[in-house]
Amino acid sequence: GLSQERLMQRLEAHAALGAIEGGGVCRLALTDADRQGRDQLVHWMRELGLEVRVDGIGNIFGIRAGRTQAAPVMTGSHIDTVATGGRYDGIYGVMAGLEVVRWLNEHGIELARPLVVAAFSNEEGVRFQPDMMGSLVHAGGLPLQQALDTVGIDGLRCGDELARIGYAGDLPCGSLRPHAFVELHIEQGPVLEAEGACIGAVQDLQGISWQEFRFTGQSNHAGTTPMHLRRDAGYCAAAVAVFVRELARRYGGSQVATAGAVQLHPNLINVIAARATVAVDLRNTDEATLQRAEQELAAYVRQLCEAESVTVQTRRLARFEPVRFDAGLVRLIEDCAGARGHRTRRMSSGAGHDAQMMARICPAAMIFVPSAGGISHNPREHTEPADLLRGANVLLDALLTLAGQ
Amino acid sequence: GLSQERLMQRLEAHAALGAIEGGGVCRLALTDADRQGRDQLVHWMRELGLEVRVDGIGNIFGIRAGRTQAAPVMTGSHIDTVATGGRYDGIYGVMAGLEVVRWLNEHGIELARPLVVAAFSNEEGVRFQPDMMGSLVHAGGLPLQQALDTVGIDGLRCGDELARIGYAGDLPCGSLRPHAFVELHIEQGPVLEAEGACIGAVQDLQGISWQEFRFTGQSNHAGTTPMHLRRDAGYCAAAVAVFVRELARRYGGSQVATAGAVQLHPNLINVIAARATVAVDLRNTDEATLQRAEQELAAYVRQLCEAESVTVQTRRLARFEPVRFDAGLVRLIEDCAGARGHRTRRMSSGAGHDAQMMARICPAAMIFVPSAGGISHNPREHTEPADLLRGANVLLDALLTLAGQ
Ligand SMILES: NC(=O)NCCC(=O)O
Ligand SMILES: NC(=O)NCCC(=O)O
Repeated sequence: GLSQERLMQRLEAHAALGAIEGGGVCRLALTDADRQGRDQLVHWMRELGLEVRVDGIGNIFGIRAGRTQAAPVMTGSHIDTVATGGRYDGIYGVMAGLEVVRWLNEHGIELARPLVVAAFSNEEGVRFQPDMMGSLVHAGGLPLQQALDTVGIDGLRCGDELARIGYAGDLPCGSLRPHAFVELHIEQGPVLEAEGACIGAVQDLQGISWQEFRFTGQSNHAGTTPMHLRRDAGYCAAAVAVFVRELARRYGGSQVATAGAVQLHPNLINVIAARATVAVDLRNTDEATLQRAEQELAAYVRQLCEAESVTVQTRRLARFEPVRFDAGLVRLIEDCAGARGHRTRRMSSGAGHDAQMMARICPAAMIFVPSAGGISHNPREHTEPADLLRGANVLLDALLTLAGQ
Repeated sequence: GLSQERLMQRLEAHAALGAIEGGGVCRLALTDADRQGRDQLVHWMRELGLEVRVDGIGNIFGIRAGRTQAAPVMTGSHIDTVATGGRYDGIYGVMAGLEVVRWLNEHGIELARPLVVAAFSNEEGVRFQPDMMGSLVHAGGLPLQQALDTVGIDGLRCGDELARIGYAGDLPCGSLRPHAFVELHIEQGPVLEAEGACIGAVQDLQGISWQEFRFTGQSNHAGTTPMHLRRDAGYCAAAVAVFVRELARRYGGSQVATAGAVQLHPNLINVIAARATVAVDLRNTDEATLQRAEQELAAYVRQLCEAESVTVQTRRLARFEPVRFDAGLVRLIEDCAGARGHRTRRMSSGAGHDAQMMARICPAAMIFVPSAGGISHNPREHTEPADLLRGANVLLDALLTLAGQ
């Protein structure tokens, strides 16, 4: 099997690029830290003899030639993080891919199919929406130009930032059509740990609905303005945050709802806010229920605007239906894990992943390993090295089977 | 009487210092724009022959000698604004004071008492809390050192900013003890306009309670974290904003409640906020009711923290009990307004004012003029020039009576 020491060495070295207090990483897509992370990755890929190609949205592909010209087997994930990210989200799947290549090289194994290790651009989607942008463009779900024209939360244009960091490549987007795609990732949730399983065979992913509500009311004096004369945009943003929380509780099941980003203007203690923006993240494994949640929210916002005499601009930032992975590939992962004696669980993913975009163009599936305490998007995100190694070895086995010897 | 043209000229010239889109002013306390406003004021004071003194908290006093050494009569207000301020809030009372001096000079009138036109530092309190900081220090309600050590919403220290703009003066704070203080101000609320009155004789001011709640939860993934495992600081801030809105509706009467300033961290769409700060402004004309509101809010926050497994740090940013102005002075203002044939109304102030601090050390009262549509802390804040002139003339008459000829 693979070497835990080498895997951890790479993970630790890479976590230094964009390191933040508490042991975490801030490597927002297309920032200088992302550039550093990419440069390191490309360096390692070249060291391993991979041919490195970069496409128009900055996706990086390290290609290991196969014995045949057949469609490649692809693995990988992303190397960007949220602002309070952990050391494993995304990067783990890419570094494990490199370790698989090193193992193959060391054992002098030539596979029938080419093997590609991919790092997709802007998977997190916190700076530029939507999330999974790189793999979405790769899969043809978002025109390249539209992706490049996206404006980030800092007001900068995606295409400009990509060019600035030197990763606007010349490979036509989507030109690498894989035979299959397998992504290894930390679970980021509490399920595996709670159930004492060490490998998750991901069979489906939740639908994701991201919307931004931009309320415009009227700034006025907090002391002199009677309650019934207020047109308080800040109150509307808060009311939406509370509404979606209650909605999620009411729906139960897989429904989650988060209002993680809020901005008020002028944002002063004694001024009723003239403008307020709130971003809402709704998810459900069931598409019909997710649509119902969106409709309820829309109706609530309409009624809120009327009651408060404010206007609203609604922007859809991301919308993905639930995705079911390839049944054969899920079974393969289960078999590989089982053959190594791991307690394995079929499961859903609460997070969005690049594999969900790749599933549009080829059989795709994912391998999960446990996240301590179910904590992610947090510097304290943690997975035991032994678990990281187990997942990487299951990936190795699955890739060997898929690429053929 | 005074000249409308000259009053408006000064107001317009001064509104250029920190001008923002929509005809408003952004002159946050102790910023460069505030320095410009101060320099202009001092220039005009000197032009009018006033002796200019600046105290340790940056309050500016323009002193016109009297025939006697008796305690001075003081008028004035403030020249700082909120970030989305109008053209009249504060500055009107100071410019009217200058026009009174010009009128006295032109008519060669020597008053028995000295007359002082004051501009108090940081009345708005949006950058550095509490509001009415300059007059509060003057009245002995806040030690100078504590005021100077206040850290603003931009992280800068009040004393450093005061020194930077060159207004850390050498006059000992509170050394000017007035015989009486009369402040002329726009109403900033809808009452005078709604009732067709053009002069308000302010007899009392609401109590003001400013608190900041800083919640600490745990950042986690918006997609993978089940609702019952969340420790969402952002939700807590939103819940507080919605709670105080409902509290104000429930209490009715003069109760108002605003959550105008909210910050989330990391403030990203798919990350449950680890930290969130919400500033709450509660006001009531009745102290017992205001205390009840504070207690209800504290109980709610306790219960919220327990339910959400978050911790909270509560900071009191400002707390002023309701103030009742000097009955004789209120009557004098009514008489002066009546003598000029103005429809006058005794009223409460919803906003806090420097006169409320001065009332701690001398008889104090205020003159209000109407605010169009009751709009304030908004670039669209407006008062008709004729109304501005009426108020200034009532101020002139009251000052003449108080200072004696
Ligand atoms: N895996 C992961 O954290 N993806 C980011 C997109 C999302 O699910 O919010
Ligand atoms: N007059 C005025 O707007 N004062 C600011 C302090 C407050 O009332 O919030």
